[in-house]
Amino acid sequence: MPSSTAGQVIKCKAAVAWGAGEPLKIEEVEVAPPQASEVRIKVHYTALCHTDLYFWEAKGQTPLFPRILGHEAAGIIESVGEGVTDLKVGDTVLPVFTGECGECRHCKSEESNMCDLLRINTDRGVMINDGKSRFSINGKPIYHFLGTSTFSEYTVAHVGCVAKINPEAPLDKVCILSCGVSTGMGATLNVAKPKKGSTVAIFGLGGVGLAAAEGARIAGASRIIGIDLNSDRFEKAKLFGVTEFINPKDHEKPIQEVIAERTDGGVDSSIECTGNVKAMIQAFESCHDGWGVAVLVGVPHSDAVFATSPTHFLSERTLKGTFFGNYKPRSDLPGLVELYLDKKLELEKFITHEVSFANINKAFDYMIKGESLRCVINVIGD
Amino acid sequence: MPSSTAGQVIKCKAAVAWGAGEPLKIEEVEVAPPQASEVRIKVHYTALCHTDLYFWEAKGQTPLFPRILGHEAAGIIESVGEGVTDLKVGDTVLPVFTGECGECRHCKSEESNMCDLLRINTDRGVMINDGKSRFSINGKPIYHFLGTSTFSEYTVAHVGCVAKINPEAPLDKVCILSCGVSTGMGATLNVAKPKKGSTVAIFGLGGVGLAAAEGARIAGASRIIGIDLNSDRFEKAKLFGVTEFINPKDHEKPIQEVIAERTDGGVDSSIECTGNVKAMIQAFESCHDGWGVAVLVGVPHSDAVFATSPTHFLSERTLKGTFFGNYKPRSDLPGLVELYLDKKLELEKFITHEVSFANINKAFDYMIKGESLRCVINVIGD
Ligand SMILES: NC(=O)c1ccc[n+]([C@@H]2O[C@H](COP(=O)([O-])OP(=O)(O)OC[C@H]3O[C@@H](n4cnc5c(N)ncnc54)[C@H](O)[C@@H]3O)[C@@H](O)[C@H]2O)c1
Ligand SMILES: NC(=O)c1ccc[n+]([C@@H]2O[C@H](COP(=O)([O-])OP(=O)(O)OC[C@H]3O[C@@H](n4cnc5c(N)ncnc54)[C@H](O)[C@@H]3O)[C@@H](O)[C@H]2O)c1
Ligand SMILES: [Zn+2]
Ligand SMILES: [Zn+2]
Ligand SMILES: [Zn+2]
Ligand SMILES: [Zn+2]
Repeated sequence: MPSSTAGQVIKCKAAVAWGAGEPLKIEEVEVAPPQASEVRIKVHYTALCHTDLYFWEAKGQTPLFPRILGHEAAGIIESVGEGVTDLKVGDTVLPVFTGECGECRHCKSEESNMCDLLRINTDRGVMINDGKSRFSINGKPIYHFLGTSTFSEYTVAHVGCVAKINPEAPLDKVCILSCGVSTGMGATLNVAKPKKGSTVAIFGLGGVGLAAAEGARIAGASRIIGIDLNSDRFEKAKLFGVTEFINPKDHEKPIQEVIAERTDGGVDSSIECTGNVKAMIQAFESCHDGWGVAVLVGVPHSDAVFATSPTHFLSERTLKGTFFGNYKPRSDLPGLVELYLDKKLELEKFITHEVSFANINKAFDYMIKGESLRCVINVIGD
Repeated sequence: MPSSTAGQVIKCKAAVAWGAGEPLKIEEVEVAPPQASEVRIKVHYTALCHTDLYFWEAKGQTPLFPRILGHEAAGIIESVGEGVTDLKVGDTVLPVFTGECGECRHCKSEESNMCDLLRINTDRGVMINDGKSRFSINGKPIYHFLGTSTFSEYTVAHVGCVAKINPEAPLDKVCILSCGVSTGMGATLNVAKPKKGSTVAIFGLGGVGLAAAEGARIAGASRIIGIDLNSDRFEKAKLFGVTEFINPKDHEKPIQEVIAERTDGGVDSSIECTGNVKAMIQAFESCHDGWGVAVLVGVPHSDAVFATSPTHFLSERTLKGTFFGNYKPRSDLPGLVELYLDKKLELEKFITHEVSFANINKAFDYMIKGESLRCVINVIGD
């Protein structure tokens, strides 16, 4: 049954970023109907991630404004474009910043989730169909962000970037599965794959690192060692099953040696969630020879160089990296939602704050001050 | 049934290296009986490997002379030391330069073959039991090499470094399984694990690289790209299933780009068998994003640094290294011998030369001139 708004331009509220670092402004925007292979989503809840902040601050990238940010969200399909059969009006969905076309070599590979067609593109501010935006204010286009732009009551996304999930799922919780939590969890569960009873090191205890720890807890790791330069992170991390803490600032020795001493030669798995290349090298060199696996998750400076002695590889260590925790968004996110509904994955721990849509700028404040892990923004109201 | 020589000192011929770079001399040596956990082996055939040459030349390491080199060999157990139950007189065996105690964390791990007790030690010239040599000439000790010292009619080895194999195996062929061939094959079959129909790049087409190619052929790779600075290697490599060749000297572009162009973005697996750190980096960066796996095999200079952008990992490439192809010597070598007997693994292709024991120095010449892949030395005579 098509909704009454299907095929129509919808006027609704959106939080628009007008310029680098300027507080978002809630504006009335027009949202055009979805085109072929697109869907229009009524956003219920969205959350703020560092990547939103990063592109809002627009230091180091080409600024693209006015833009509607936001990429962690949950909502309901309002209408679908021509030829869309995978999704229908009323489906409960998570829009995702990277997609799964189902047809390319990556989508067909068991290992990769880096879809050729719908892979993340941070520079693109338009839909791939026609190179145009679906958002406008008085006819003037407003740019998209990551193909999701969830800081809006309605948004348009490519069908390949939208995961259909269990309609029973509470949207104010599962919205955070669209990005950081899945990334960290998947880094552990899909890439490092620690065995039951093993020892795991997590470098960086932000949202991604804590999700990696949650993955290690789910995998049954017996020791989870958290490493962070900020000791304030340690108290919260205990909730996520982190059993021991190391602040590199408390040690004169290289952290690799500290870890080797505490673990009889090194950890079984090591997950780097800092974005700092020094921590990446440390994470790798902290692995045990013979079987140790290190996984890089953090996004480094573009000119960062990973440098180590090749002998660390020859003594049978493995180094990998991951993008979105190696999850294929449409195939795998429904399973993560089930894991939450089965009470195996605890999402509540990640949600430290909730604000109304009108107060969206507070979410930015909490993140900048380092107070929040995840702040959920209620877009739908009460 | 104990042999008549059991418990006695055996006088026999051995090729002794008296000093760095000096031709080996066939001498009469005394070989003491094996002690607890040791066996004495009658060596039938042995082959020359680069590692023998390297320690004979003794450039860059602490020289240890007089020494009996040799570590690729096949023979028969002549007698066993106290408490040895795994092997008995008459068993057909391959001595190996690295061992498997069966008790340590590495031996108990499915992944590792880097035994804590018996891991390769190039500096040690004595047996670990008592810190002494079993070889002497007129009472003066001659040093061991890698716990194998197979350039002798009889040698003594730790039972953990000796693989019992099918007695039907022709020893003049399977002797080359003790080192380089297994290393290269295992790098492909155990570590890179290419899928049927995949594309594999092999950097360096010496004995180890060609064995890696043989592994790729056995795994059913459809394209095997050989990369070597020496185009003379290409003709021989065709025998090993290498389908295409690239000499980096023929290209102005980085070899990573040349490979990416020819393979729609990169190879599925890449095996580095050069020892050159530049080739290691190239091998890694030549892998396809999403699923590419690179394996380092070559032994680099001790101060070599592997340097790359961490983004190559984040786009889901994997980098590993291997030691002895991840084979556990006692557990896995018997299976390789069966693979040969089943005609799945072709060892004959590797054996380019054969010499008598008296002519052992010719084997060194062939290797130095780059004429040989493997030269088998007939120790037992006709
Ligand atoms: N690969 C992906 O698909 C993907 C997806 C989302 C996020 N990320 C990346 O993951 C990283 C973590 O994200 P987050 O949201 O948790 O960030 P965050 O800033 O909340 O947390 C990072 C933590 O790392 C710590 N840290 C920084 N340098 C360190 C060092 N040298 N040693 C030890 N600790 C150090 C900081 O103190 C901080 O607590 C970021 O780089 C982000 O860009 C990657
Ligand atoms: N990891 C292990 O357990 C193990 C065991 C045995 C040997 N090895 C190592 O494997 C390596 C190969 O052994 P091998 O006996 O085949 O040696 P080799 O010298 O016969 O072959 C090496 C080949 O690499 C080529 N090469 C050198 N630099 C190159 C470059 N930058 N690009 C392309 N090709 C290049 C050479 O031309 C040569 O053909 C050595 O480093 C050896 O020490 C490792
Ligand atoms: Zn795709
Ligand atoms: Zn995000
Ligand atoms: Zn062992
Ligand atoms: Zn060797």
